[in-house]
Amino acid sequence: MGHDPLAASPDANTRAIFVLAAKKSPFNVYGNPFYDHAGWGNVLSVDQNGALEKCVQNYEYSPKTGIHGMVFDSSETYLYSADLRGNKIWTHKKDPETGHLTLVNSLEAPDPLDHPRWVALHPGDKYLYVLMEAGNRLGVYVIDEQTHCPVFTHITYPLIPPGIPNPNGKLYRSDVVFLSPSGKYLFATSRANAFHLTGYIAAFALGPAGNIERQICLNPTPTSGGHSNAVSPCPWSDEWLALTDDQEGWLEIYRWKDEFLGRVAHCDVKEPGFGMNAIWYD
Amino acid sequence: MGHDPLAASPDANTRAIFVLAAKKSPFNVYGNPFYDHAGWGNVLSVDQNGALEKCVQNYEYSPKTGIHGMVFDSSETYLYSADLRGNKIWTHKKDPETGHLTLVNSLEAPDPLDHPRWVALHPGDKYLYVLMEAGNRLGVYVIDEQTHCPVFTHITYPLIPPGIPNPNGKLYRSDVVFLSPSGKYLFATSRANAFHLTGYIAAFALGPAGNIERQICLNPTPTSGGHSNAVSPCPWSDEWLALTDDQEGWLEIYRWKDEFLGRVAHCDVKEPGFGMNAIWYD
Amino acid sequence: MGHDPLAASPDANTRAIFVLAAKKSPFNVYGNPFYDHAGWGNVLSVDQNGALEKCVQNYEYSPKTGIHGMVFDSSETYLYSADLRGNKIWTHKKDPETGHLTLVNSLEAPDPLDHPRWVALHPGDKYLYVLMEAGNRLGVYVIDEQTHCPVFTHITYPLIPPGIPNPNGKLYRSDVVFLSPSGKYLFATSRANAFHLTGYIAAFALGPAGNIERQICLNPTPTSGGHSNAVSPCPWSDEWLALTDDQEGWLEIYRWKDEFLGRVAHCDVKEPGFGMNAIWYD
Amino acid sequence: MGHDPLAASPDANTRAIFVLAAKKSPFNVYGNPFYDHAGWGNVLSVDQNGALEKCVQNYEYSPKTGIHGMVFDSSETYLYSADLRGNKIWTHKKDPETGHLTLVNSLEAPDPLDHPRWVALHPGDKYLYVLMEAGNRLGVYVIDEQTHCPVFTHITYPLIPPGIPNPNGKLYRSDVVFLSPSGKYLFATSRANAFHLTGYIAAFALGPAGNIERQICLNPTPTSGGHSNAVSPCPWSDEWLALTDDQEGWLEIYRWKDEFLGRVAHCDVKEPGFGMNAIWYD
Repeated sequence: MGHDPLAASPDANTRAIFVLAAKKSPFNVYGNPFYDHAGWGNVLSVDQNGALEKCVQNYEYSPKTGIHGMVFDSSETYLYSADLRGNKIWTHKKDPETGHLTLVNSLEAPDPLDHPRWVALHPGDKYLYVLMEAGNRLGVYVIDEQTHCPVFTHITYPLIPPGIPNPNGKLYRSDVVFLSPSGKYLFATSRANAFHLTGYIAAFALGPAGNIERQICLNPTPTSGGHSNAVSPCPWSDEWLALTDDQEGWLEIYRWKDEFLGRVAHCDVKEPGFGMNAIWYD
Repeated sequence: MGHDPLAASPDANTRAIFVLAAKKSPFNVYGNPFYDHAGWGNVLSVDQNGALEKCVQNYEYSPKTGIHGMVFDSSETYLYSADLRGNKIWTHKKDPETGHLTLVNSLEAPDPLDHPRWVALHPGDKYLYVLMEAGNRLGVYVIDEQTHCPVFTHITYPLIPPGIPNPNGKLYRSDVVFLSPSGKYLFATSRANAFHLTGYIAAFALGPAGNIERQICLNPTPTSGGHSNAVSPCPWSDEWLALTDDQEGWLEIYRWKDEFLGRVAHCDVKEPGFGMNAIWYD
Repeated sequence: MGHDPLAASPDANTRAIFVLAAKKSPFNVYGNPFYDHAGWGNVLSVDQNGALEKCVQNYEYSPKTGIHGMVFDSSETYLYSADLRGNKIWTHKKDPETGHLTLVNSLEAPDPLDHPRWVALHPGDKYLYVLMEAGNRLGVYVIDEQTHCPVFTHITYPLIPPGIPNPNGKLYRSDVVFLSPSGKYLFATSRANAFHLTGYIAAFALGPAGNIERQICLNPTPTSGGHSNAVSPCPWSDEWLALTDDQEGWLEIYRWKDEFLGRVAHCDVKEPGFGMNAIWYD
Repeated sequence: MGHDPLAASPDANTRAIFVLAAKKSPFNVYGNPFYDHAGWGNVLSVDQNGALEKCVQNYEYSPKTGIHGMVFDSSETYLYSADLRGNKIWTHKKDPETGHLTLVNSLEAPDPLDHPRWVALHPGDKYLYVLMEAGNRLGVYVIDEQTHCPVFTHITYPLIPPGIPNPNGKLYRSDVVFLSPSGKYLFATSRANAFHLTGYIAAFALGPAGNIERQICLNPTPTSGGHSNAVSPCPWSDEWLALTDDQEGWLEIYRWKDEFLGRVAHCDVKEPGFGMNAIWYD
């Protein structure tokens, strides 16, 4: 079993798009192709220096699959994948010795036009948040204690203003969802597909188990966000967020205080393609 | 396969306790024994007049089981059972032709001392509410769309006041949970095990899918409730509730208005054993 | 100026009903007659032992007045009186030397059938809560910074369940309102005028200034409450409340925890007339 | 009595800034000077065609006054003025025959740095909302039924994000506050004093009396807002809002749906000075 041979064709649009490094031995790296012929994920081994070594497993999705985001649970036993092209959420189980993956389950998104793009998991492993790129909404899933599979709670929250013009669903595409380090707040963003429109950033208050208690805001971003508009919460404080844009090319810092969001810094970086995602250094 | 022979022994405390009549052909009746040797449920056929005919199936639980409440989903395909003695929630699937049941799954209650006693299902079949008799709390479960099994949301609500003295968990035992006919409200009760204490009645506001949005109240009942304190919402209006008590023997009617609960009638019935559950007639 | 001579007539129903001792020099005591001919309040001096000495001032209300509750602000400069019979809230100013009172203002209750019976003032002196005996509701007033008079905020909360039968407004009469020692919660009670009905106890969450943020509950009390049903929060902890009843004659203790109210003790005192109000000793 | 003679000096910065036309006979127009020497307001008569005729009264404020916004109550009897320079809210009473004004009261803003700039009155005349330009917050006032003067409720809401850098309070200045036509929502805006910062738009849910129940949002605006950032709710529907900007010169339309705000149109008008305030035509 393995990749569709067409994936390697010079004519194919198949591209590597997302990669997730295990934090436990054997420290494999889990990667996804995207666009067409992307029905298999790749497990890559690393050498002693952490350099990629070779593909040790092609693990199973479906022919229509295009995975855009993945997350491990805290024990690194279960892997959840957002299948944008296949409109599914996948669950795989990792072998603790080999790091190889076994398919456990796939679940259709609630609506055929949802297109799951990104996943985040609450630190307690009880709630999974699935961002729907085309549905422009956030789906709340509880993790089944018996099967470790996500189960839809039938609760969603909007990532673009309800009723905003969106003919054929082509004007907006939601981007990412991340937790604050305390696990008390969740942030998600959407992008517009035209430069004269804005994207949006939403914040949510979470209960102790990770359930969403309420949507706090849905603020417009300065630009469409371009291909980016990715929010990156500071990993050591709930107080700061970074937002990146590649329409104009900048990085912004926001302060999260009293459940209000305020922009406190803006840094232009006029390099083509800047900037996709921000990384925090202490 | 079938019942433990001891269940039929004149020395056994095994008793019939709960019965649920199917509303679809072949109109079987589903019953449960209780106390010891209650590990099998019974499917009883009826004759043309609706009279019980014979036991057509003994369906599987576990040796420790003591089922105290059951509910079918709206299509009458899945049956959910609250196993007080076995501390589980069971899912069985009904054959549409024969009405026989097949075991699908059993799920441990969140805490070994919970003791699920009663179940209610939201009209949309998406949320199951499990009342924990000994845990004195209400557990919220979402129904998995793929398996039709309940999955715990890790959300519970108290049915007795937090911190009220309850040594060894012996002073209170929660009773029943019912939906208002609109599906917008949920009511649940608890009983005290001593006549100088009161039981409680709780109300909850539900979202469109059946998720609990908030606990509205936790009001004391006039008495301990005895063996009863059962709330019976009027089946054709959210505005009225009946409450029965067998400590003193009465029936009370409450009005539910503006999310406040007010007692509007009290009817003493000084018959020994009155009253367990109220039934509304239009 | 002074009392209506009829007040002292042996045929009159005029009675002393409420008394408030100043905590600042000259330590006068402020008292009110009630029922008919109760149009003047009394300022009584005390001797070195604190014993009542003589009436040093009759201060002005109105001929129709019947004051049932009073409260000083924290500086003991302004006195607010609930005029049940006159349907008003009065403001008087105290002379810091003599302790004599000067009339500042009187304000009609929002409804002619409200009948203000009791007043409580938030520790910050910014919000006054006026309990309406016949209106069976709690009125929220803000204290005008310029005049120190209460101003109605047009916000009221029910002290009996909305829509409960109350022909001619004769079946319920609200009793008292008190703050928790932290100033974060407010408790108020109502009584029923028939032994087969119950009174109610309500709790409210307060904002930092003393504004009411929301009504938390409206729980029935065990009895009508008789002439009493008075709630007495423990003065040194938000966690405990006392409730007294003279229908059956008892004192109950409630625990206030996680914004739920639970009865934790009941003490029968079968003395005629027991009990009106509870006092806490540390 | 009348204007400071310096107000008319060519060297003075005194300017007319705000005007309010009466809707009742005798249809006077009420105007305010601003900046220095602005201690008197002007009542101007109109001729049969509605043209301004002459100044019929100079009515009293204070030497430090600089009024920036005014509103009549619904009966056009009381006029409330926001005194930005004098840091007060003024109440005047209008004579129904002559339309002349008499001073009733002035009230200091809660903080010396608040600088009231704009006022809005709920349709029921019970709540006045005072926008503080330098305080960047909205103050809630209840109208005293006896005196018709506003009384501070000690409740304020932020119009810029709490904790956003604002050295010496110089970077932000709040702009205007308006009601939706139903009286159920309130919208307020703030401006930034630097082009690299954004202004903000806030929405509030109101209770039946006009009290603010909660702040719904505090969204950034596309630009600083320049001298404008004025929100203009559509007068015949809660669903639409206009926003004007003079940093770049544009008008935007927002849809208010499900308590979310979404920008649905943007119209550039590259005329210098465009645009201060939007007016809706049916």
